[in-house]
Amino acid sequence: MKKLLLAFLYCTALHQFSTAQTPALRSIAQYAQQHAGSIMANFTEFLAIPNVAADPAGLQQNAAFIMKMMNDRGIQKVQLLQASTTGAPPAVYGEVMVPGATQTLIFYAHYDGQPVNPAQWDKQLNPFQPKLFSGVLGKGGMAIATPADGAYQSDWRIYARGASDDKAGVAAILYAYDAMHKTGQTPGCNLKFFFEGEEEAGSPHLNEILDKHKQLLQSDLWIMCDGPVHQSGKKQIAFGVRGDTHVDLTVYAAKRPLHSGHYGNWSPNPAMILVELLASMKDDDGRVTIKGFYDDVTPLTPAERKALDEVPSVDGQMKNELGIAQTDMRGLSLSEAINLPSLNINGIQSGNVGKMASNQIPTYATAVIDLRLVMGNDWQRQQQKLIDHIKAQGFYVTDKEPTDEERAAHPKIIKVLRGEAGTNAQRTSMDIPMVKKVIAAVQSTTTDQVVLQPTMGGTLPLFLFEQYLQAKTITVPIANHDNNQHAENENIRIGNLFSGITTMASLMMLK
Amino acid sequence: MKKLLLAFLYCTALHQFSTAQTPALRSIAQYAQQHAGSIMANFTEFLAIPNVAADPAGLQQNAAFIMKMMNDRGIQKVQLLQASTTGAPPAVYGEVMVPGATQTLIFYAHYDGQPVNPAQWDKQLNPFQPKLFSGVLGKGGMAIATPADGAYQSDWRIYARGASDDKAGVAAILYAYDAMHKTGQTPGCNLKFFFEGEEEAGSPHLNEILDKHKQLLQSDLWIMCDGPVHQSGKKQIAFGVRGDTHVDLTVYAAKRPLHSGHYGNWSPNPAMILVELLASMKDDDGRVTIKGFYDDVTPLTPAERKALDEVPSVDGQMKNELGIAQTDMRGLSLSEAINLPSLNINGIQSGNVGKMASNQIPTYATAVIDLRLVMGNDWQRQQQKLIDHIKAQGFYVTDKEPTDEERAAHPKIIKVLRGEAGTNAQRTSMDIPMVKKVIAAVQSTTTDQVVLQPTMGGTLPLFLFEQYLQAKTITVPIANHDNNQHAENENIRIGNLFSGITTMASLMMLK
Repeated sequence: MKKLLLAFLYCTALHQFSTAQTPALRSIAQYAQQHAGSIMANFTEFLAIPNVAADPAGLQQNAAFIMKMMNDRGIQKVQLLQASTTGAPPAVYGEVMVPGATQTLIFYAHYDGQPVNPAQWDKQLNPFQPKLFSGVLGKGGMAIATPADGAYQSDWRIYARGASDDKAGVAAILYAYDAMHKTGQTPGCNLKFFFEGEEEAGSPHLNEILDKHKQLLQSDLWIMCDGPVHQSGKKQIAFGVRGDTHVDLTVYAAKRPLHSGHYGNWSPNPAMILVELLASMKDDDGRVTIKGFYDDVTPLTPAERKALDEVPSVDGQMKNELGIAQTDMRGLSLSEAINLPSLNINGIQSGNVGKMASNQIPTYATAVIDLRLVMGNDWQRQQQKLIDHIKAQGFYVTDKEPTDEERAAHPKIIKVLRGEAGTNAQRTSMDIPMVKKVIAAVQSTTTDQVVLQPTMGGTLPLFLFEQYLQAKTITVPIANHDNNQHAENENIRIGNLFSGITTMASLMMLK
Repeated sequence: MKKLLLAFLYCTALHQFSTAQTPALRSIAQYAQQHAGSIMANFTEFLAIPNVAADPAGLQQNAAFIMKMMNDRGIQKVQLLQASTTGAPPAVYGEVMVPGATQTLIFYAHYDGQPVNPAQWDKQLNPFQPKLFSGVLGKGGMAIATPADGAYQSDWRIYARGASDDKAGVAAILYAYDAMHKTGQTPGCNLKFFFEGEEEAGSPHLNEILDKHKQLLQSDLWIMCDGPVHQSGKKQIAFGVRGDTHVDLTVYAAKRPLHSGHYGNWSPNPAMILVELLASMKDDDGRVTIKGFYDDVTPLTPAERKALDEVPSVDGQMKNELGIAQTDMRGLSLSEAINLPSLNINGIQSGNVGKMASNQIPTYATAVIDLRLVMGNDWQRQQQKLIDHIKAQGFYVTDKEPTDEERAAHPKIIKVLRGEAGTNAQRTSMDIPMVKKVIAAVQSTTTDQVVLQPTMGGTLPLFLFEQYLQAKTITVPIANHDNNQHAENENIRIGNLFSGITTMASLMMLK
């Protein structure tokens, strides 16, 4: 019985690691499968190095670890690309020039992770002590020992900060190169590697690094290995990303907190003023009512529209998974919804709630709004539309605490802080020959139809690559969609890591 | 110059302490003035004893201090009235029976204070290290030494927890009795004293104590010495109080926090659902739109209406002091506004704001609503009107976390927790002969017109006195309105404490 079970488990694993459609890719997938023990040991070691912005030494250690992996593989010109700011985490660069190759692909991933609050993680976990589970924590997954025979299963998961976002990207790229090399295959084009260390901090030095190393970083296409595959579990390619910007709102009422009995009905409640303002921003169908909010949107091309229509519907699955009965913008599919700009309340706060609540009229109420952007939107113009709407609701808008004079003159006062950093959306055409080759390559790794997303929901500073390098970018993610990226209990599904190795190898071998 | 200044200061103090209209009251005011040094020393000692619910031993010490004050004054039957619950702070009782007197007044104040967070207090202050200031902290008031000659000034302030709410009440009553006694005056009626120790905790054992000591606590009228005088600085008598009850609201969206890029526009935002709901509760004129919200209100009697019309307007002064340009319910004066039921947002919270904000769609949004009540309102009926309104907005209402089945069946889900304790409003008729004598007595202590408030904004469990003792109550407050009661930096204006002594004495001498 035990033998039978083991054989079955091994089969599941093997099957999951080898859906490749060509002999070359099958041999790469098999190589990775056979060396799963050493690959996972190395990956676990990588995940154990803290990679948060608050720990610059940890980030330097991560960069050193990656350099060693690259040197071990014989990758050339391995070096750190440093910003002029002392202590800023470097990007790690390397390249493999292929005799006769006419085109160059550059692979991007980032080795830094989101900040961690270990107290929010499950008690069994520590963000930098990677732990193997037999499935999803909280859905029957149990902590298990490293398999001595290296027989990992696809549905197992490793929990650690950065497990999927985005050390899995770094790892899949470098293990793919290794497997290709060890199985005697040759890259189809020149390969470059660029691993950033500041993505989760908003890439504050990326522009400087790109500008300084223009020549070194020339390529025909950047492959951005970041983010999740489609919620259906199918592989996907994203041709663009949403943009993003923020606005902070604070509404003022009486200067001191008031007793709600002595002043309730008479002194204005700032939370009520703020909720009325926020409620004015959306109609009953979830559409944003701000004037011109949808006006700038660049329509999808026929090819993009076709791709969007072919994205498999996961709406029913996701509603069930998330426990929601109705969507925000009524009548739109998830894919359609992320191809429109959005207005989201990230947070709202006034007074106290729960056990801390007291019978007061608070002095202010505040909210943070994020505006997601699509092609055609400009982040500053989108902020301005929001501010114009606020003014149209009768508010006096300031960017400071109101003075006594302002308080005396204006019934409704709001402090609006425009987020100073905005990122516009980006999209790469599906019609570029190199892009078409990428689609074909990824398709050759799977029996499923690859999902082509005109826009991915996340925001990456892809416009910087266009601006400083005149480069094209395309995103080929590998992580499972339920990876808890940016939150506690981040994880990567083992099957996604290994499937990602094959995906990256397919790209390295395209001609 | 120094001599002249001192003489001037002394005059200010004397004048402020003696606006009494009868020789008897003038002699009492003068006695208090002449003994200001010892009175303030004793009061300061009293304020230094911690009086928060979290410190039961401190509360017992306060009760013991009050008993000693009463015994020192020859008050009889001094005793602690204990609830059956071990450790509950006792009420302190005492009485003075006057030969030939046919009526009995019972004086109420409470010796416990609101919880303190010393970190929120001004750096110069500690809640239980009473400190004398030359005026209002933050408005030119400076810390000053105790005057060796006892020449306190009216506008000086003592900062400490309980300074005005409500140890000033306890002190004014006992110092008044002392001054009356020492100046050879006799009470006009039998006097009883009842000092509660749990008022700020919601008087959880008051019903039991009243019920158990029905006989001992018989009287013709309770004088509640608690709360502030009118904002104009004039003395006031309040014939009733607003009631109060709470409702906790929590709106649910996706079960896990979502990336606003990947799901914004598609997965509902709980903060947006909650703000839409809250915004539906008031119209543009600040009137509550909940069906029947104002229906149960008992109209004011002609005498109450007349009193209300004669309340001096402080609307302009308060708007200026609070820094607001427009009132909540448009067109109503402050006095009118507190004679109507109100709906106030005590607090609202969803996601994070400020530096903690992240690009998420939160999983829930919550708010605490307090409903202030006036005569005619029933707290449970008022809660029900709110809940019916929520249902009419299409919400599925539950009192637990929603199940998966409920999530699948209902687009809008809200958890509503009814506050389990509600207090109805209370009002005593102005036409009762003993009440008329109280008005005349307070009027005899001042040259200003005494303000007669049909309803005070605060909520006290006065209905318990009606319920258990069939007693009448009337509120005669003495504290300054800007005393920061319930908040940090609580204080009492010296003039208010001494003026309060005369007020209490006038009541003790009425026949």
